Amino acid sequence: MKLAPVYKSLSMHPDIDQIIVHTGQHYDQMMSSHFITELEIPQPNFNLQVGSQKPLIQFAQILVGLDEIFETEKPNLVIVYGDTNSTASGAIAAAKSNISLAHVESGLREYDKSIPEEINKLLTDAIADLYFAPTQTGYDELIRCGKNEGVYNVGDVGLDLINNNAQKIIKAERILEQYGIDPNHYVFMTCHRQANTDDVHKLKQIIEAANQFEERIFFPAHPRTSKAIKAFSLEGLLDKSKWIITGPIGFFETQALIKNAKCCLTDSGGVIKESYFHKTPAIICDKQTEWIETVKEGWCTVTGPDKKKILQVYKNLDSKNYIHNNSLGEGDASKKIAEIIVNYLQQKKHEV
Amino acid sequence: MKLAPVYKSLSMHPDIDQIIVHTGQHYDQMMSSHFITELEIPQPNFNLQVGSQKPLIQFAQILVGLDEIFETEKPNLVIVYGDTNSTASGAIAAAKSNISLAHVESGLREYDKSIPEEINKLLTDAIADLYFAPTQTGYDELIRCGKNEGVYNVGDVGLDLINNNAQKIIKAERILEQYGIDPNHYVFMTCHRQANTDDVHKLKQIIEAANQFEERIFFPAHPRTSKAIKAFSLEGLLDKSKWIITGPIGFFETQALIKNAKCCLTDSGGVIKESYFHKTPAIICDKQTEWIETVKEGWCTVTGPDKKKILQVYKNLDSKNYIHNNSLGEGDASKKIAEIIVNYLQQKKHEV
Repeated sequence: MKLAPVYKSLSMHPDIDQIIVHTGQHYDQMMSSHFITELEIPQPNFNLQVGSQKPLIQFAQILVGLDEIFETEKPNLVIVYGDTNSTASGAIAAAKSNISLAHVESGLREYDKSIPEEINKLLTDAIADLYFAPTQTGYDELIRCGKNEGVYNVGDVGLDLINNNAQKIIKAERILEQYGIDPNHYVFMTCHRQANTDDVHKLKQIIEAANQFEERIFFPAHPRTSKAIKAFSLEGLLDKSKWIITGPIGFFETQALIKNAKCCLTDSGGVIKESYFHKTPAIICDKQTEWIETVKEGWCTVTGPDKKKILQVYKNLDSKNYIHNNSLGEGDASKKIAEIIVNYLQQKKHEV
Repeated sequence: MKLAPVYKSLSMHPDIDQIIVHTGQHYDQMMSSHFITELEIPQPNFNLQVGSQKPLIQFAQILVGLDEIFETEKPNLVIVYGDTNSTASGAIAAAKSNISLAHVESGLREYDKSIPEEINKLLTDAIADLYFAPTQTGYDELIRCGKNEGVYNVGDVGLDLINNNAQKIIKAERILEQYGIDPNHYVFMTCHRQANTDDVHKLKQIIEAANQFEERIFFPAHPRTSKAIKAFSLEGLLDKSKWIITGPIGFFETQALIKNAKCCLTDSGGVIKESYFHKTPAIICDKQTEWIETVKEGWCTVTGPDKKKILQVYKNLDSKNYIHNNSLGEGDASKKIAEIIVNYLQQKKHEV
């Protein structure tokens, strides 16, 4: 998904040939190809079809798959995005093959190595050549860790994605009508972190807090969460007059729902920054967030899966008093990334 | 090999159960099991039999192999050594499995990502919990890169290995007699870096420089180097009255030969530090070394594969004027490592 705006920006440069490798790591293949269609990205040139497996098996399969692709395609540079197993194993494959490596969404940390994504971030940022931090905090972390070349604060490509698709998001607002909800009169909720879904107590606290909100709750449930709700027999807490529970929804619908919500209740990094983009307050039912700026400026508050804290924050939401410094960028991250990559490749060509 | 002294030190602690996993990455299986016998390490509990393959395939196989072992053995901590593909993939397997990770020989850098080992170092040091640097330079690098916990300068375990086996090394000195060479009247040479073996010009410069030494040259040739010599038809340069060329030799014989040589000519990190331990000067026919202290104190000099420079350094060898600050430790690295690991595990147990 993060690839879309960067792909588009790089397409403007006639010297650049792009190859897309889809690892197939996404838990929901349907959702993934749904996104590809929605965002007008070309179909991937390669699909490793790794699927849902143990992380080390995913790593191994991606390394083997990319080894073959790199050997035939001989790319000059590999771009990886975010902090998934695909990100880290793609980065390792590139670095071990002596191919230049760019990391989009670099420098973010939660300072907790028990989070699987944290290990992916650390591995990727250990070996990249170009570091594209989405925030000043990310940039500062990379400098603190001794990187002294190739580090850029370009802003977050997520904002580019939203800006590039503003019209489609407006169109997608019909989802509100479709479900009979009014702008500012519902809460948009997501919950998928294993720390929350694997622990009945935590999951219950989050649901019980939401139950005390005045508004209805729009909740596209992650498959893992649906499973947990069933396994823990929590269905009784989810009154149908209060809860609108759907399966995964498209990217534009998600944006339309975040944009018009009174607030979000979420443990997703994506929804946190999208709330900030749309100037919708968010309550973070995760232990921490890497999007520090959204918290500093008031839009997001970390409560953890704590009913009392969630309700306290909910009651004191006051978006008129939050500042908004565009701390996640100006929506031109992918343009900047493309220019830096093109310059880097030109310079490297001259060096050889 | 580096495992031997640490294994021995950890064995002194009755609470610690150790499991040895041999990845089989060594190019020469015979050499590897030869070492195991020589160093009195128990036979490995597991052998992944990865063998000589492309790096990413080795990574993939080690990740899959360790995933299974970790699942059944459930170790509390994994120790990795040095900077091989086994080191990095072992580290990744541990970190992704949320198992504590200790890196022995941590913090060393050559600041050149085209060296495959450099990528392994960077990956491993990105995700370790305990960092055992062999030198102050290694320690300082880890601090510079923002590590603020678990970083120790313990010295190099290689010295422990030599100290623990001093008698065996003295016995092994009979190799000099066997080959008819006298202490201080031969040069010990090794050459195995791909940068040198893959380039006829570089390999020739090194051999031609050695040909101008006054002494005979004892040269245990790495299989890759033997192959290159044949492929480049350089056999004519290797006069038998001057050159003693053997296959791989045992660890104790190697130490005996380094100890008694007039000097070493080498591109091996191991031989560089072992020269320093034995107070034998070394000429480094590699672009750089990570063992900065050995250079600063005069014992080792980096010449690269440059005939003129090699001969210049050779003519000016003057070991009486070099200082020796025991900058690679006091031979108690493995004892320190064992104590730190035991404390770490105890503390972790209390935290749970």
